[in-house]
Amino acid sequence: MTKTQLFELKPDGPDMDIYNEAKKRFDSLAKPIDGFGYFEDLICRVAAIQGRLIPDIKKRAVIVMCSDNGVTREGISQTDSKVTLQVARLLGKKESTLGILTRGQGIDIVPVDIGIDTDEKISGVIDKKIARGSADMLEGPAMTEDQCILAIQAGIDTVKMCVDKGYTILATGEMGIGNTTTSTALLCALTGDDPKEHTGRGAGLSDEGLARKISVINKALKMHGLEGNPKKEPSGDHALFALGAVGGFDIAALCGVFIGCSMFRIPVVIDGLISAVAALTAQYLVPGCAGSMLASHNGREKGTDRILQLLNLKGIINADMALGEGTGSVMLFPLIDMVMNVYADGHSFEETGIREYERFSK
Amino acid sequence: MTKTQLFELKPDGPDMDIYNEAKKRFDSLAKPIDGFGYFEDLICRVAAIQGRLIPDIKKRAVIVMCSDNGVTREGISQTDSKVTLQVARLLGKKESTLGILTRGQGIDIVPVDIGIDTDEKISGVIDKKIARGSADMLEGPAMTEDQCILAIQAGIDTVKMCVDKGYTILATGEMGIGNTTTSTALLCALTGDDPKEHTGRGAGLSDEGLARKISVINKALKMHGLEGNPKKEPSGDHALFALGAVGGFDIAALCGVFIGCSMFRIPVVIDGLISAVAALTAQYLVPGCAGSMLASHNGREKGTDRILQLLNLKGIINADMALGEGTGSVMLFPLIDMVMNVYADGHSFEETGIREYERFSK
Repeated sequence: MTKTQLFELKPDGPDMDIYNEAKKRFDSLAKPIDGFGYFEDLICRVAAIQGRLIPDIKKRAVIVMCSDNGVTREGISQTDSKVTLQVARLLGKKESTLGILTRGQGIDIVPVDIGIDTDEKISGVIDKKIARGSADMLEGPAMTEDQCILAIQAGIDTVKMCVDKGYTILATGEMGIGNTTTSTALLCALTGDDPKEHTGRGAGLSDEGLARKISVINKALKMHGLEGNPKKEPSGDHALFALGAVGGFDIAALCGVFIGCSMFRIPVVIDGLISAVAALTAQYLVPGCAGSMLASHNGREKGTDRILQLLNLKGIINADMALGEGTGSVMLFPLIDMVMNVYADGHSFEETGIREYERFSK
Repeated sequence: MTKTQLFELKPDGPDMDIYNEAKKRFDSLAKPIDGFGYFEDLICRVAAIQGRLIPDIKKRAVIVMCSDNGVTREGISQTDSKVTLQVARLLGKKESTLGILTRGQGIDIVPVDIGIDTDEKISGVIDKKIARGSADMLEGPAMTEDQCILAIQAGIDTVKMCVDKGYTILATGEMGIGNTTTSTALLCALTGDDPKEHTGRGAGLSDEGLARKISVINKALKMHGLEGNPKKEPSGDHALFALGAVGGFDIAALCGVFIGCSMFRIPVVIDGLISAVAALTAQYLVPGCAGSMLASHNGREKGTDRILQLLNLKGIINADMALGEGTGSVMLFPLIDMVMNVYADGHSFEETGIREYERFSK
């Protein structure tokens, strides 16, 4: 794929006729109108994205993009970057936190090595490595434009592979020490926001560490001419440049996942900050691709809320989570399953003989 | 049970040693410290309430208290009060919205007729009827003190029955046309808040209907001397008086469920506004009984947030739901199940060989 081909992609977008039909179906059920709140919109959207009045959400997976980030050399993380590889090995064995969290939930895990700093072929992890980690954003762009596009293509290809295997809904996750730094930098590059607003402590950063992280992000933005701009919605060119300058392979590949899902009409669940930044970038690269995105949780990192607002999405789980791997995004599935029970099999006013309940107000 | 006996109840409260041990267990797992956010506190609390380091949450049920409210005669609801009976019949057959929502989730439904306006013995519904609906709060107290205590006792007895059947965690729900009016009135009677702040539209109330609902609540509070007081935490006597004056059988029985759960060390999930008001009342009747309560969702009715704050609890699901029956509270179960997988079976730093991850900050 060339840059021109990337920018020419035009997703179909959700089928609004099906959305409206789905909403009518909800309204015909013997329950208060809008009783399931945001879940009703969510399921109508899933139907509209898939183009089926009764959506199919049984076969699902979470794609976890794993890579290392050169910016860890600037001391923005107290965690050893070898942890990326260690957790990726566990992901491949379904023994990481995500693997244990999803046991018995009918959610498959698709871990991808998109740029881990190792030559090891990790068992159970799909090898789509672009390079052994990105470059240090303070020494140059984190990735070249070619690398960016290769990583985006790898994300699209991963979705294609999932579609071929029969998956009909996907979630996103990542593993990569240093990637809240890259994500925050990219968010600020795309919005013009001040890094101070969005930079989080993760779980272990001291005051000093936090100040260092902010300072590194500020330096990088300045160095790449990305400081304080743009004030309007960025162009695809700007987004691609920013992604290369301060992003990472995991973010670029997740961009590809979001783009791929919009092309194949697969609803895709955003996880926390890193995944959300990838979603926002994808929307700027391929306008309209946000149409197939679903929000799951708000997370602890401050930037996530900002991005969900920009994408006009609402997180449903509000649990101050900060774990990564897709642990937040997969938690949306059992909730959708429950409301889908009602949407697919609920009794109508007619069947129950209940009248006026449609104007229910207790 | 007499009023004196009620006020003498003293729940053990959560075992804080077990809470701290549980938190240590979370911190030993190969994941970022506090990575599961509010879920970590939630599971530590479940352990502390049950008094078991590895809590048992497999056998669970949702108790649904159903009753009619005399205040519907004041036109505060556009829904026919016959709907209470109609939905109760469906609850008994597991065919109401709650029944369909919980299919395949391993959650049993325990519907109780605590005061439905019918002589029918409803199949599948436990008969603990105190009266055929409460009185109109504008014509006198909704319930006598004796009726209140009988309903509370019925709630405690229902919990006892569940404990005898082996249930180790419970959720709460209700069905009763008119019960957002009673709940809002009771909330204002307990807090001194202005009804304007908390009165919601439900799903069908027009501007005119909303004004009428607020006016009815204001009149009732004034008539019973409950307007604008107290400004400090109410006494058990005040709470019991307010419950009788403007509450309902469903709320009183749910009070009993919360009190019973605190006595039998059963974690109990609060649902939306009605359930939350019952929880708050229970805490004022039997101080300390909030120790065994868990929040699930914030719901659409404005008063719920206020109550969760007073109880020092945080809703995890934020989906603008307004359905009742316990549909919000049961949605917490699959989420707890997932995090419990990790808490019970997750790998430690030692097992995984991951070091420094405990100071994870990406």
